[in-house]
Parts: sequence; structure tokens; C-alpha cells
Amino acid sequence: MSTASHPGLPASAIVREVGLRDGLQSLPVVLPTPSKMDWIDAAYAAGQREIEVGSFVPARLLPQLADTDALVAHAKKLPGLTVSVLVPNVKGAERALDSGADLMLVPLSASHAHSVANLRKTPDEVVRMVGQMRAARDAAGSSMLIEGGVGTAFGCTLQGAVPAQDVLRLMQALLDAGADRVSLADTVGYADPAAVQRLFTEARRIAGERLCCAHFHDTRGLGLANVLAALQTGVSRFDACLAGIGGCPHAPGASGNVSTEDLVFMLQSMGIATGVDLDRLLALRGSVDAWLPGQPLHGAVWRAGLPKAFPPSRGASA
Amino acid sequence: MSTASHPGLPASAIVREVGLRDGLQSLPVVLPTPSKMDWIDAAYAAGQREIEVGSFVPARLLPQLADTDALVAHAKKLPGLTVSVLVPNVKGAERALDSGADLMLVPLSASHAHSVANLRKTPDEVVRMVGQMRAARDAAGSSMLIEGGVGTAFGCTLQGAVPAQDVLRLMQALLDAGADRVSLADTVGYADPAAVQRLFTEARRIAGERLCCAHFHDTRGLGLANVLAALQTGVSRFDACLAGIGGCPHAPGASGNVSTEDLVFMLQSMGIATGVDLDRLLALRGSVDAWLPGQPLHGAVWRAGLPKAFPPSRGASA
Repeated sequence: MSTASHPGLPASAIVREVGLRDGLQSLPVVLPTPSKMDWIDAAYAAGQREIEVGSFVPARLLPQLADTDALVAHAKKLPGLTVSVLVPNVKGAERALDSGADLMLVPLSASHAHSVANLRKTPDEVVRMVGQMRAARDAAGSSMLIEGGVGTAFGCTLQGAVPAQDVLRLMQALLDAGADRVSLADTVGYADPAAVQRLFTEARRIAGERLCCAHFHDTRGLGLANVLAALQTGVSRFDACLAGIGGCPHAPGASGNVSTEDLVFMLQSMGIATGVDLDRLLALRGSVDAWLPGQPLHGAVWRAGLPKAFPPSRGASA
Repeated sequence: MSTASHPGLPASAIVREVGLRDGLQSLPVVLPTPSKMDWIDAAYAAGQREIEVGSFVPARLLPQLADTDALVAHAKKLPGLTVSVLVPNVKGAERALDSGADLMLVPLSASHAHSVANLRKTPDEVVRMVGQMRAARDAAGSSMLIEGGVGTAFGCTLQGAVPAQDVLRLMQALLDAGADRVSLADTVGYADPAAVQRLFTEARRIAGERLCCAHFHDTRGLGLANVLAALQTGVSRFDACLAGIGGCPHAPGASGNVSTEDLVFMLQSMGIATGVDLDRLLALRGSVDAWLPGQPLHGAVWRAGLPKAFPPSRGASA
């Protein structure tokens, strides 16, 4: 990189691709398995080393993600790729253990109302479930990581405000129950940089490096500003969806997760190495656009192009 | 406000509306004068107290802004409104002085190539011109402020990189030539938060409070992250265009300035008072949409709506 990163910011960061899960699950179409495999291969070729390939939920609930087993098997052939899956329950965790994935992400909603409505469990019931998953993992002699993802950490469309003390208590409870690590998610796009600064500072004080990831949506345009605020607290892993696919069913046309390509562009512009080749990533975005005709895509860099002065190495050597 | 702002951030900030100038000058249509007056009135009613209403350039070059004299006269009827205009040359400055506007913004491009191509003057010729404008202002006994706006401060589509030392030298030269204050602009959307942090820190060390404003474009999606980085160096005035109108002729569909409504939303979410009523601002955005049929608008909050937990006062009492 030609530009030194700012003191206090991490020298490198990981952008975890969640488009195949968080993105595709929100779309009304099913992307065929061969295209998903092409996506995984191209993301890997572009330098991405952490990809959430799907979710072990019943196929009748999310037919978009019914091929998760096949995708894990395919992705596991790529050396050095960390393959993660989302699991909502113990049955899903068992399937994840059988699949050979490297990491299972277990979502917990800090909003009691959202948790009951979406997961049909209270947050504390999810914590107890993570204890069961940990026991199953250990009994299987598996090295699969368990990540507890605390969602609606900055507020909820159902109950409104979610107190920080609830988020922090549940994060601690997940670790106590056996999660190897935890992450915080702004599931509905309510976070702002000041709230991010406060909550992540507190969460890192409690969990240290076990607080491993931040998951922001760009629903109200603050996604990258929130990433910057989290970076400044020391977080160095971020979920993102290529082309910002996904979105919120309550806000038609609204963006989903932070877009991978814009996030990589911001990080590399700042001198923070990502290991990703932006030209290849933008080419992959073109493929995703072709694979999802008529679906709304987001992001800015693909349209405007890279700056003339952009570092020629683009961080790909990191 | 229900939320205390973060230590180190300003308690309040000013969002200067530049949509009537920087936004409209980029569109291929002419917004009729009565609609512009309605825009000014509604922005004022929503709490905005600084508006750039137009530019004193020859009408044959920018017919979109040919009614600037009438708009200044109209806007000056609103108590406490700071009415600014852009002036590119001494003739324009004389018209500005005659108009009774409160502030004239004189653009200087730190990129030599951009300056010659767009202003047909070298940066140092613009500095000398500001000296003449200051003499004219003083000779007229006017209290109109002169703001020197250093553009392409983070790079240029023609020459690529623009060295920070050029930007800082020209900023100092503008002050020496008689500008009352200066601002820095990312004219082409090349800035990133690390570059913003570095340049604004240096610029404030040199100019102190006379560095009065930051002007970011959202061309590559980093507009609000750049605002956050500038806020953290102590800057508390930002240019913005309602609905992000404007954009770059080289990147069709790309956003222009940071959108006013998303910026106000971010600031107020962070507990930074803006004095703006977001509901009224969003209603005005609807009017602008109706006034500019077929023109691309940007921004996220208008689509997603305000969060359920958004502070009911929304900073309007500031």
C-alpha cells in the first residue's frame, strides 16, 4: 500500500462475504447452485478468505438456501478459506457439524420482541441453545467455531430502543454458554457512529478479541460511517454483501448489508490491507448482476469507477 | 436531544444547503424561480439557516442559475438566514456585492490541470483575484464575507493525486490574500476517512476556526464516513444537497454532494444538534422530487423512513 494507515486503526481488516446468505435469503428468486459455486470461486480468486455460504434452516422456509450442504463441500476445497454457515437451532447445528464447515454463526436477537417474533425463542432460550450446541460440538470432537451473533444491537423495528445493557449481558451470556466468539449486528439499520463507538468500546472491554466482527446494514446510508466508528474501537472484521444485496422487506428498495466492494474500497483507500483485488471483485459484481436480473443492486464504486490516483497495488499483495 | 454526543465531537453542526447551486447546476433542466423560492422558504421553515442560492456566472454558461439576483433578494427577507453565492471572477464578485448576499464563495482548484481546464486560471491567479475581490469588498464598505473554497483537495480526475502541501499552501495563500475564511472540497469524490483526518488536522492547525467548512461528494459512497472523519477533527459545518442532487458528468447516475437529509439524520442520531426538523426536510425532499421529474435523486433515509426509536425532538429545538 502506498498510504500508511492512521495511528489507532488496524493495519489490516477482513471483509467476510455474507451475500450468499444474508443477501440471497432476502431475494424472491433462487440463485442456482452452479452460479453460487462460481460466486464462491470468484470471491476466493479475488482474495476473499471468509465466506458465509448459506444457512441450515428447513428448505421449506428458505428455499433460496436449500443447497448449503453442497456449497460447504464445494467451498471446503479452496485452501485457506474459512467457510461459515448460519444455524438457527440445534438441528441446524448438527447439520453444520456434519457438513464440515469451519464456523457456525448462531443469531440471537437482543430485542425480546424481535426474538420471539423471528426465532420463536426468547434471547435467554437462545443462550441455553448455544450451550447445547457447544456440548454437541465437543461431543463430536469437532474444531468448528461457534460464533454468537447479537442482532438488533442498536434498536429494533418492533420494540424500538434496545438497551445497551441488554446487548452486553446477552453477549456475555453467549460466551459463558460456550460460544468461542461473538459479534454485534445492526440488523435493521438503526446504528449511528456515536452509538457504535459507545457499544463496541464497552463490548470490547468485556469480550476483548473474542468480539470478532461487526455487521452493519446500510438501510439509512450510515453503513460505512458505522464501519469507520467500529474500526476506531479496534474491530477489524466486517460482514458485507457484494452489491449490497438483501435489504429490508419493510423498506422496498432500501439497501441491505454494507456493500463489499464499497467497503473494500474504503479500507484500501485508507491504507488498511484487505487482501482483496478490487478489479476482480468489481468483475464478480458484474456476474452477480447478470445472475440476478431485475433484482435491485446497490453500491457506488461500481458506477463511478476507481479514482485515477488509486494505489495500483490496491492492497492485493497484503 | 436524548443522546449525549461523543466527547471530542462538536455539540452542534451546521448543514449548509448547496443544492440550489451545486446540485441544480449539474442538471440538464432549469428549475423555475418560483420553485426555487419555495425550496428556500421550506428549507428555512425546516430550520436551515445557511443556503447557497446560486452563482454569479454568465447566464449563457449556466442558464440553470440565471436568477441568482432574484433569489438573493428573496432569501434576504428571511430573518437570520445566511445567504451565500458562488462567484468565479471579479465581475461575479461585483454582482454579488450589489446583490446584498451575506457571503461569496470563491472556488480555487488545487489541481493545476483542473484549475486551468475549468476556471481558465492557474491556482495562483485565483489567489490574486481573491486579493482584488477583497479590495473591492473593502472599497464598497461591505460586510460580505469572502470564503475561499479549495477544491480537488483530495485528488483530481485529470491529474490524479493532488499533494497535500499544494492544498495547504493555497489555503494559506487565500487567507493571506484577504479571504475571511476557507473551506476544503472533495470535488470529485476521491477522499477517504484517513486522508480527511490527515488533511483537516493539518489545515486546522494552520487556519484554526477560519477553516469553516467541509464539502464532500458521495460519488464512491464514502461521503458520510468522510463527514465523520472531519467532525472528529473539529469541523462543524458541512455542505450538502437535498436528495444528493448533482453528480458527476463523468459517472452517469453517480451521486453528487452528500445528501442533506441523510447527513442531518446522521448528526442528530449522534446527538449533534442541527436545528433542522427532519420531517419537514423529508417533506421538502418530496417537493423537490416533484419539481425535477425524471432527474436522478439519491439518499437513503427518505426510502427507509426514520427509526422507530428516533428521538422525538429530532434536534429541532436546538
